[in-house]
Amino acid sequence: MDAQLRIEQALDAALRLGESKAAPPRLQAATRHAVFPGGARIRPRLCLAVAWACGDDQPALADAAAVAIELLHCASLVHDDLPCFDDAALRRGQASVHAAFGERLAVLVGDALIVLAFRNLAATAHHAPERLARLLVTVADGVGAPMGIVAGQAWECEAKADLETYQQAKTGALFAAATAAGAQAAGHDPDAWLELGDRLGEAYQVADDIRDVMADPVWLGKPTGRDEALDRMSSARELGLAGAVAHFDELLAGAVRAIPDCRGAAALRALVRSESERLVPKSWVSRIRAAQTAPTPISA
Amino acid sequence: MDAQLRIEQALDAALRLGESKAAPPRLQAATRHAVFPGGARIRPRLCLAVAWACGDDQPALADAAAVAIELLHCASLVHDDLPCFDDAALRRGQASVHAAFGERLAVLVGDALIVLAFRNLAATAHHAPERLARLLVTVADGVGAPMGIVAGQAWECEAKADLETYQQAKTGALFAAATAAGAQAAGHDPDAWLELGDRLGEAYQVADDIRDVMADPVWLGKPTGRDEALDRMSSARELGLAGAVAHFDELLAGAVRAIPDCRGAAALRALVRSESERLVPKSWVSRIRAAQTAPTPISA
Repeated sequence: MDAQLRIEQALDAALRLGESKAAPPRLQAATRHAVFPGGARIRPRLCLAVAWACGDDQPALADAAAVAIELLHCASLVHDDLPCFDDAALRRGQASVHAAFGERLAVLVGDALIVLAFRNLAATAHHAPERLARLLVTVADGVGAPMGIVAGQAWECEAKADLETYQQAKTGALFAAATAAGAQAAGHDPDAWLELGDRLGEAYQVADDIRDVMADPVWLGKPTGRDEALDRMSSARELGLAGAVAHFDELLAGAVRAIPDCRGAAALRALVRSESERLVPKSWVSRIRAAQTAPTPISA
Repeated sequence: MDAQLRIEQALDAALRLGESKAAPPRLQAATRHAVFPGGARIRPRLCLAVAWACGDDQPALADAAAVAIELLHCASLVHDDLPCFDDAALRRGQASVHAAFGERLAVLVGDALIVLAFRNLAATAHHAPERLARLLVTVADGVGAPMGIVAGQAWECEAKADLETYQQAKTGALFAAATAAGAQAAGHDPDAWLELGDRLGEAYQVADDIRDVMADPVWLGKPTGRDEALDRMSSARELGLAGAVAHFDELLAGAVRAIPDCRGAAALRALVRSESERLVPKSWVSRIRAAQTAPTPISA
């Protein structure tokens, strides 16, 4: 089955676990709104690609790992869009959850998605119960304190923070969890896969910083220039646009080198390369390099 | 070891899992603030009492189950106190998390506690890995959609809701999870323990409704009369104060009858009776009954 279709079906099945005729209908609608339609689903695709590279002997468990990673990502977006954080009215080209359903349901949807991510993983673990505990710890470490997404967002609430630590927690940790969980779901040691996840995660955050400056709001589906408006740490602010692009390229080259020699290596390299073009199109890179030598600043 | 001490130590050890010198310090402080000092810790005490009644052959796993239940309860309080919900400045006699640390950290603390609850459970499961999946599903069902705390809070966002369904989700479900998880942590079937949890949970919600009308704000540690102010469903509003007290008494009698014949039965009966007095002191009952025949309404 096509990986993208496999992910959408697994997400839908997981959401159905949290649905019932006896449950509050607006919570259900808001939860679906937070998950569908999705973005690029890069984290679950990465998770499944690594599981496949490791033999994928328990596809249902790999699906549940990929679903957990994506649901936790969606939860972080819903809470990150809240008025007290980014106050974003748009997400993935549609109204954000709080804009469409109100702030209270947005808080609850995030909570429900976090619980569902772990519940769905546990409910699938009868296929390979001995793998559950370590897999769950891996996923939790990607999202919780002290080093996961929650910690990353919490660095935005500190007077002082280190850019690399912030990016590693806010974005890198869940990418590293995606690769590690893919390996663990297939019964493999995650260590060989952590570097790929780390580098991709960092590249993704750098790309997000570049896009924040460069992108067309319609194409990106969310308001841009928010890092500057929110005085948030950003590679593009720290390194300059051209410096950030050079850093992005280095990180992706490192990600490709970090792919272990295995049956899935070619597919993983292709995935990394297509993400590279999707995240920071070559057409942008030319514009940025041209602008570097031009007398006037770039206008997006 | 004394159950109360065992719970505080286990909570402290779990929080330390989410702490690090490399983590955002205000998130750590806010997370501790959400968990310490605690309230009555009735849910984890109930969980451990049932585990003990079932033999408590894996005390570390029972501790982790009790900790998960309490951390999830704390998370729900932190999010319930947010400005968009109850906007409560006080909790357990001190500033609520959002009042002390701001709204953003309050959202993140709730998220971090949910993740930590499951992570800590998984990290302890090497003691009895075959028990983890079902135990985790039980705990998740007490807190998530469609029937747990999140669903209960979401009923407050619906135009119409049934009082019993609302109370069962908002309070009953986590009590039922506490008894069931206690049994499962000790390797027992949870079914015999669900009724005790259900009845106690409902009694606790009814007591909360009574206290909302009756209690001295200083004693309760949070602002009272909020159900009425927020136009929230309440047994005291639906049945009247005397009717709510009679319902509470019936529920507790049912809870005592639902305790299975086992080595822990006497201790569980004592726990239920001491909770009864703590929740709705006999002195209140006399005041309410006297007021029922008096010409003027009760003033708290």
